[in-house]
Amino acid sequence: MKHTVAFQGELGAFSQVAASQLASSCTPVPLPTFDQVFESVANGKCETAVIPIENTLHGSVHENYDHLLKYDLPILGETFVRIVHNLIVLPGVKMKQIKRVFSHPVALNQCRHFFEANPAFERTPFYDTAGSVKMLMEQGLRDAGAIASAAAAEIYGADILRKSIEDDRENFTRFFLLKRRSSRKTAARIPGTRYKTSVVFTLKNTPGALFTALSTLALRELDLTKIESRPLRGKPWDYLFYVDFVGHTADQNTKNALNHLAERAEMLRVLGCYPAAKK
Amino acid sequence: MKHTVAFQGELGAFSQVAASQLASSCTPVPLPTFDQVFESVANGKCETAVIPIENTLHGSVHENYDHLLKYDLPILGETFVRIVHNLIVLPGVKMKQIKRVFSHPVALNQCRHFFEANPAFERTPFYDTAGSVKMLMEQGLRDAGAIASAAAAEIYGADILRKSIEDDRENFTRFFLLKRRSSRKTAARIPGTRYKTSVVFTLKNTPGALFTALSTLALRELDLTKIESRPLRGKPWDYLFYVDFVGHTADQNTKNALNHLAERAEMLRVLGCYPAAKK
Repeated sequence: MKHTVAFQGELGAFSQVAASQLASSCTPVPLPTFDQVFESVANGKCETAVIPIENTLHGSVHENYDHLLKYDLPILGETFVRIVHNLIVLPGVKMKQIKRVFSHPVALNQCRHFFEANPAFERTPFYDTAGSVKMLMEQGLRDAGAIASAAAAEIYGADILRKSIEDDRENFTRFFLLKRRSSRKTAARIPGTRYKTSVVFTLKNTPGALFTALSTLALRELDLTKIESRPLRGKPWDYLFYVDFVGHTADQNTKNALNHLAERAEMLRVLGCYPAAKK
Repeated sequence: MKHTVAFQGELGAFSQVAASQLASSCTPVPLPTFDQVFESVANGKCETAVIPIENTLHGSVHENYDHLLKYDLPILGETFVRIVHNLIVLPGVKMKQIKRVFSHPVALNQCRHFFEANPAFERTPFYDTAGSVKMLMEQGLRDAGAIASAAAAEIYGADILRKSIEDDRENFTRFFLLKRRSSRKTAARIPGTRYKTSVVFTLKNTPGALFTALSTLALRELDLTKIESRPLRGKPWDYLFYVDFVGHTADQNTKNALNHLAERAEMLRVLGCYPAAKK
């Protein structure tokens, strides 16, 4: 039986591109919301999930940080996807036929130069990038285009009329691969591979608390790669800190750091340990 | 001539409640977007603005962190507003007449217990909390209610039928008061008052960089109250750090810390120094 990987969006979404990098042998299962993606793994309907966690233009996907804490699904992998937007049309449609261009508002906003160069095109917000290609094909619209991934064009049998029409090429999204905690095994450590560990913790609201918490990593030369703070519900103006650093939980140095951090933290949870993706 | 204070939303929005605390002598100027609020002060149409920066349930208003950097308007004050949601109706309307309840989706979501207790009420998403009260009054709807602030009920002459229907009372929003940089004067320091300083900085992407940056505050016993990271455009996986700490820029201790931080930072900007609001 083939395994499944849940992701948010329609078939052809950038999350599916990430899923093909992180779980290529799994059948992709598109779901409407991030909540449903986490739920599908928690309740065992899907074996794995792929979620976006941060983007180099828009920042963290804060909702997913909150879900990581709530659902407690371990992170088993990460990958980066360059967000390349394409103008996609029904087979044979030419530029001069296009009146409207559909896509998610964020994607429309990331292709401003393209719309400035083609002022006759009406920007039409749609709920999803790949979903806009699906809709074009289903409705047989020959006076419209959609902005989405190359994967979406392929899946729905549409044509790419203009490649890479995004303004900013430095547009990357980082994705996590998640599994059920019950199915967790300590990842076999591959020598020569760089690993990251992700943790979440809370601290007493005292002066220097965050500095002291970070000292448990810095004084052991563990490289912090990302810090994110989120509000702690029920304790106004206290925060949860999500930290990623380079290290494997089986390393003595990392074990010592986590023990030291546990001494300083009110709550500490390891969210996962996984091979660092190449940038 | 009376001064003006710009805010996002309709008259009666929670931002106007904050404006009445931070700039009570100014005439409130409602505007549709945060961008327009910053723009109105930058181009001199309004003297001041009040913007939400973080909420204890939803976290930071990340868009406004980006605007603080872009528009460079100094922060001159902060305040906290407890978010109290009320069921608001046309004068004389009773509970049993209500079929639909309008409000911003976030406000509807924050009153789930109320809707569970009143299952006949249809939740109807609207673009704004105070705007839903305005619309009820303009259209004379007697079979509907709106969820908004007490200020909105007063401004539009509507009735509060149920007070404080939000699920979670620990729901606070922190707001900043902004002014044009050209009109900036060093705030006269009131003895016995606690001040905060807000800064934004970038660091070289080297191990221990954030730890060393925070040491400039911690080793001088300056209390960090908030840290937020945002992506740095054009440098994938590098971050801007926004930090608030207790201290006045005229204190020698704070001056030393900022000089020390400037040594470590690639970019450092002081966003403002202002009296800390009482929690």
